[in-house]
Amino acid sequence: MLSFELDTLFAGIADPDMDSMRILSETAMRFPDALSFSSGAPHDGNHDLAGLTFYLDRYIKHLRDKGLPEQRISRLLFQYGAVNGFIQDDVALMLKQDEGIDVAPDAIMITHGFQEAALVALRGLFAAPDDVLLAVSPAYVGIRGAARMLGIPVHSVTEGPDGPDPEEVAAQARAVRAGGRRPVALYLVPDFSNPSGSVLPLAARKRLLEVAAEEDLVILEDNPYGLFARDGESSPTLKSLDTERRVVYLGSFAKSAFPGARLGYLVADQEVTDADGVTRTLAATLSKAKAMFSVGSSSLSQAVVGGYLVEHNHDLRTPTRELAAVYQERLRAILAVLAEHFPPEDDHGVSWNTPRGGFFLTLRVPFVADLAQMERSARDYKVSWAPMSMFHLDGGGEREIRLGFSNLAPDAIREGVARLARFIKDTLRDTPEGQV
Amino acid sequence: MLSFELDTLFAGIADPDMDSMRILSETAMRFPDALSFSSGAPHDGNHDLAGLTFYLDRYIKHLRDKGLPEQRISRLLFQYGAVNGFIQDDVALMLKQDEGIDVAPDAIMITHGFQEAALVALRGLFAAPDDVLLAVSPAYVGIRGAARMLGIPVHSVTEGPDGPDPEEVAAQARAVRAGGRRPVALYLVPDFSNPSGSVLPLAARKRLLEVAAEEDLVILEDNPYGLFARDGESSPTLKSLDTERRVVYLGSFAKSAFPGARLGYLVADQEVTDADGVTRTLAATLSKAKAMFSVGSSSLSQAVVGGYLVEHNHDLRTPTRELAAVYQERLRAILAVLAEHFPPEDDHGVSWNTPRGGFFLTLRVPFVADLAQMERSARDYKVSWAPMSMFHLDGGGEREIRLGFSNLAPDAIREGVARLARFIKDTLRDTPEGQV
Repeated sequence: MLSFELDTLFAGIADPDMDSMRILSETAMRFPDALSFSSGAPHDGNHDLAGLTFYLDRYIKHLRDKGLPEQRISRLLFQYGAVNGFIQDDVALMLKQDEGIDVAPDAIMITHGFQEAALVALRGLFAAPDDVLLAVSPAYVGIRGAARMLGIPVHSVTEGPDGPDPEEVAAQARAVRAGGRRPVALYLVPDFSNPSGSVLPLAARKRLLEVAAEEDLVILEDNPYGLFARDGESSPTLKSLDTERRVVYLGSFAKSAFPGARLGYLVADQEVTDADGVTRTLAATLSKAKAMFSVGSSSLSQAVVGGYLVEHNHDLRTPTRELAAVYQERLRAILAVLAEHFPPEDDHGVSWNTPRGGFFLTLRVPFVADLAQMERSARDYKVSWAPMSMFHLDGGGEREIRLGFSNLAPDAIREGVARLARFIKDTLRDTPEGQV
Repeated sequence: MLSFELDTLFAGIADPDMDSMRILSETAMRFPDALSFSSGAPHDGNHDLAGLTFYLDRYIKHLRDKGLPEQRISRLLFQYGAVNGFIQDDVALMLKQDEGIDVAPDAIMITHGFQEAALVALRGLFAAPDDVLLAVSPAYVGIRGAARMLGIPVHSVTEGPDGPDPEEVAAQARAVRAGGRRPVALYLVPDFSNPSGSVLPLAARKRLLEVAAEEDLVILEDNPYGLFARDGESSPTLKSLDTERRVVYLGSFAKSAFPGARLGYLVADQEVTDADGVTRTLAATLSKAKAMFSVGSSSLSQAVVGGYLVEHNHDLRTPTRELAAVYQERLRAILAVLAEHFPPEDDHGVSWNTPRGGFFLTLRVPFVADLAQMERSARDYKVSWAPMSMFHLDGGGEREIRLGFSNLAPDAIREGVARLARFIKDTLRDTPEGQV
């Protein structure tokens, strides 16, 4: 009977670090009785099953209104089609309106979520074994995972409270080069980073683009949370400031529409010239990799998200404004409840950052908050969260917790933080001095 | 301004071989005026836009009938969920009924089509740089592409008219081993192979399973066409004969439901034991790789295909019986029309195989039928096809054409073959002697 020892499989499968995506995705399901601060799941409140058929039909109507014959519409939905997708026009209109990103549809590839967009970009840009990815640390686990699956080494750039320091990025790029390897790209989330909640200031954005040109880096800009700023506090995306085409922009509809669609996109307007002198966009060139990962993207997901874009006139800021207010309210709620349970004047050793938006905040606790502790918290205290150490590339964050507050109403936040406070206080009481 | 030369990107992107998937997917769209024998696109006739919302609603009703609360149904459709999917129960019922494959749902992973199932299986099983994939040649281009994206070397096993000879598989495995590398798995399509249309006889299936055990090979069985045999002529899948768990079965709904859903699955019931002695299925273990490729699969695609399975009582043989008859009629049509244009008694140098089912046949012509010729055929003669050389791993098939007859009605087949005959006869007339 064929069976395997785990360590005879691909090392990336056996690596506990690589289990983090599954843990983050599945913790809420594994502990259905626990209040979940464990993920960045968006607010459920606006999800209406009838909306799925509404937006699907809306997109089909849109195609009919454009004059497409029924047979062509049917083929778009049912058949094999263009690897890079069929809603790039709609995404281009949205990007121009919402983000000031002005690119042609052929610079866009529709993907199975951010994750596949990252995978495709990495696969294309990293050609040699000593090509290195710079990534902010702590970082979203998906970028490390995508790199690991492709055997791409990652070099960390530790971020400060305002995200990565551009001079530190330059220093790390030079350090990699001094070690005989080539820094190819930098991955970051400039707006409300996952997990830290940091926002890169405008001056640092401009300087980072200069550094990218100086150090010959591509910037992989991941922007799932940019819509969820306080009114009037949005920063321009790096891509919208990118006059030199240094930025490959990785987009997701998981937060602006819904995660179940698994739909995202890649913006890559760089020119690629082949041996015959023919020029295409990088997005068009990378379709060869996309084809070999998953062929095209789900026509159903594309049509539903396409219908959502069309229905809202390709403006996601308006339908998500209410949602942004919901997240802002939750952010205020969690900050207030944390301060009630852990008054700043008391000596409890618990503190946290105060992000201005996004889905996450960082809670610092005076003990090692690892996965075993999280499972104990979920099982015995009915509150789940994510160990911040899961997001660090080279160690760090062992005494930190990521709290995702996006899918809990203020009352649930109040109850969840109360449970968390009991867990923290019990743990502190039970943890022998010096073993924290 | 950042730009690239193609050959500075990942070599798999620059390799013209890697463009084959895109070419096969997009040829019909690129030449809308041509009759297309270029792809394995399924018959359009049963595609009805209203069916999409019907099956989506059918699946939601199924969940309600099972007693799932509305909030859980909504979360399944909208939110992040289990990486391996939510319709594994339905796929397990279908596999038992239709294929005699009896596995638990936790041995199944739902994927973004066959392509991602292959990618995930390869990523997990191939751990070292000298781990080699054996693949039948000619083979579906997707398997070579998935291996290339992951840097996995492929060693070809040339197939005969009845698919790969098991003794040849053993010989090639030993040859790889003699060269100091490890043969890990064999990829094949036992039923109506793409591109050749070959069917592996029952005795060879049984012997191949013995060879796999003797040579310690995993068999990657890809079965998109098994449903489309003549009545009563189905062969048992390798997986249904697999008492030793040597087979990882790669499934697709592209032909049994529709390609646009981009939905497939992986069956891997092998046990994997971790360092703590905990045992999981290989499918569950591989979810770490799936998470890093694309997180879960589209909830919309899962629900629509789930609704299709439920509506048909998890029996795909019944709703596809009519479809199988359509393909059989088309097969008879193309064979008859070819014989009219190229009578066996004439000396035209054109011949073909006579598959018993599936979507493809092989046409042998007395000139090099490459991509440039195909484009000329599509542009000037309004008929497209696929060069067989695209499917060969180590050269071969240069004077062969793959004709996909699955999405052309008999009248269109008649017209398409007439155009093809003109193209072939003109090419023969214009090709100087000795340059064929």
